[in-house]
Amino acid sequence: MHKELNINDKQKLDSLYDAIKIHSENFLGYPVSKDFNYDELNKFLKFPINNLGDPFMPSTWKVDSREMEREVIEFMADLLRAPKNNWWGYVTNGGSEGNMYGLYLARELYPKGMVYFSQNTHYSVNKNLRILNMQRVVIKSQYNGEIDYNDLKETISRNRHMPPIIFANIGTTMTEAKDDLAKIKTIMEDLAIDDYYIHADGALSGMISPFLEPKPNFDFADGADSMSISGHKFLGSPIPSGVVIAKKNNIDRISKSIAYIGSDDTTIPGSRNGFSPLIWWYAIKTLGKEGLKLRVEDSLKKAEYTFNKFKENDINVWRNPNSITVVLPAPEQHIIEKWQLATEKGVTHLILMPNTPYEQIDNILSDIIPSIKNIQEKELAEVIL
Amino acid sequence: MHKELNINDKQKLDSLYDAIKIHSENFLGYPVSKDFNYDELNKFLKFPINNLGDPFMPSTWKVDSREMEREVIEFMADLLRAPKNNWWGYVTNGGSEGNMYGLYLARELYPKGMVYFSQNTHYSVNKNLRILNMQRVVIKSQYNGEIDYNDLKETISRNRHMPPIIFANIGTTMTEAKDDLAKIKTIMEDLAIDDYYIHADGALSGMISPFLEPKPNFDFADGADSMSISGHKFLGSPIPSGVVIAKKNNIDRISKSIAYIGSDDTTIPGSRNGFSPLIWWYAIKTLGKEGLKLRVEDSLKKAEYTFNKFKENDINVWRNPNSITVVLPAPEQHIIEKWQLATEKGVTHLILMPNTPYEQIDNILSDIIPSIKNIQEKELAEVIL
Repeated sequence: MHKELNINDKQKLDSLYDAIKIHSENFLGYPVSKDFNYDELNKFLKFPINNLGDPFMPSTWKVDSREMEREVIEFMADLLRAPKNNWWGYVTNGGSEGNMYGLYLARELYPKGMVYFSQNTHYSVNKNLRILNMQRVVIKSQYNGEIDYNDLKETISRNRHMPPIIFANIGTTMTEAKDDLAKIKTIMEDLAIDDYYIHADGALSGMISPFLEPKPNFDFADGADSMSISGHKFLGSPIPSGVVIAKKNNIDRISKSIAYIGSDDTTIPGSRNGFSPLIWWYAIKTLGKEGLKLRVEDSLKKAEYTFNKFKENDINVWRNPNSITVVLPAPEQHIIEKWQLATEKGVTHLILMPNTPYEQIDNILSDIIPSIKNIQEKELAEVIL
Repeated sequence: MHKELNINDKQKLDSLYDAIKIHSENFLGYPVSKDFNYDELNKFLKFPINNLGDPFMPSTWKVDSREMEREVIEFMADLLRAPKNNWWGYVTNGGSEGNMYGLYLARELYPKGMVYFSQNTHYSVNKNLRILNMQRVVIKSQYNGEIDYNDLKETISRNRHMPPIIFANIGTTMTEAKDDLAKIKTIMEDLAIDDYYIHADGALSGMISPFLEPKPNFDFADGADSMSISGHKFLGSPIPSGVVIAKKNNIDRISKSIAYIGSDDTTIPGSRNGFSPLIWWYAIKTLGKEGLKLRVEDSLKKAEYTFNKFKENDINVWRNPNSITVVLPAPEQHIIEKWQLATEKGVTHLILMPNTPYEQIDNILSDIIPSIKNIQEKELAEVIL
């Protein structure tokens, strides 16, 4: 019953392909890897794959990839040092769903909880909290984008009757700043608070941090109760996806109260994408921990290279330690648009994802550096005038 | 840095492919089309496509398919008779996200609202309501799965101080029963209630109903304020997806209150799948309204055929008028498993999705009919003893 595309629609699709090809070559400002190749999986797109329900529960529906999904979750639980035999998770439609999951779990455990997060947190967290109907306090950020621990401690101490739910950034959007879970735990100890919850949003850097030396305080062993990681960021994927990992005993506590609605399914969606778990599985199997480590090293090397190039040109550049994000003053508007640069309050960044060719870096630098200098000269001229 | 899959993993992937191929041939019990072919789109899977944000808002990010997404939403708004120039929507990760969206919108408009839905409603709705923290009352269903309008009216009349939010099923999971929006509106008029909201869950049948004669009372012109439709059901897709359509003036009302969180983005996810909108677009362009109508006719014809086969064999079969779902007593357990039959309280169903080959239908019938007869004979023997 399907016809072929008519000639206009065919042209439209071809133009879109060409545009996407060019545009995806011309950016270094977003935290998404571009060096993936999952052609071997395309044949699975002939079937209505659906991982509906909990990946660890039996199901009558068999057109699924839940076995691979379980392997992915196991790998990630290990990588993020989740407690042995006390983890659970699933492959999500993106980091934001994983964050919603963590916050939802926290709310079910602490219905009277108060959520704290830094002002540099991604706007989707506020969307999630609104959907979940949760109370929140925004905490000041330090200059580098990390949460201000003094402000956090002071604010929590004024609301000690409400269990704190900390939404920690493991890599903020603009500067890749990582909140330190050990410091957050110390605050709780100082305030003698036992009932609290920490969700760590490791969208990008949750996949990098396990391989850094010194290792940041970011994972389950450091105090996280749940974590969300994106698949389309460091790993690379044509379709946004993510992994959420949580402590199984917490899931069990909330699933009891969910059972009365006639379901053992504690995932957020109904039907679930079964293709993304294959992508995760394929990436993990072909990379291994060693391959992931190499990716991290490559990114760090290129961040260093990029940082030095700006420095050599007297550009006011900086980066957080061991981060792959280089922060710099925004260039002129036409350069921002040409290179799809995410810009906020006169500041922009380049993110050196794995396997970015030096040629691409040099290309963008040869545009950005003169543009920033132009702006600086104009500003200087105004001061002199 | 990627290696090839090792030999074990390669075999595992091949086995999964074989299993999925066989399993997807061997079911008629789930509402998902299997006759799709989107090979022409596979080349887009080389890029990190991401439709982040509102599809109707400008964006610096350009590796997207938002233009196609807008065409899909326009097509669907027209098909579902949304008010001219007063619609908005986006492509979701599945029907459940669209339902969450409709309920979220309703809650923002009526924070003190009470949600009503029939007992035959899909369990994911309860999950959504729990996440959204909304109060609910479950209404009785009629024998055919349709909501009991008397019970609905009586229950609403006891809670007239709370704006009613009706979650209407346009096709229940088990019997494809459609709640009648005209009747629901009449109840509101009878009770002199002006402030109410109707969300219509048309996961499967929202795509069928526009082509039925007589047309059921199911869409915007009949009283819906928002609708959710699945893409992997009637249309067919390898990845779960959906479309949610809502009235634009309602979106505008809530987006004002969302603006303070620093975002014009009223969609639920952060990063958004840009591949699924291409699938929707491709399906709509290659089918057109005529192609969709042919699919509906084909399904109805085969439902009729299947129904008659059971009837001829004195099986206690029934179906809702103009539905593609044939409801019958459950066969023996090994048959349920062999054919992946969704079974509830001794009742199961076959769903005659478009282009199901007669051979496949006959195949499954030759297994199910004797099995049901076996059970009947045993029951009869027990009665005689």
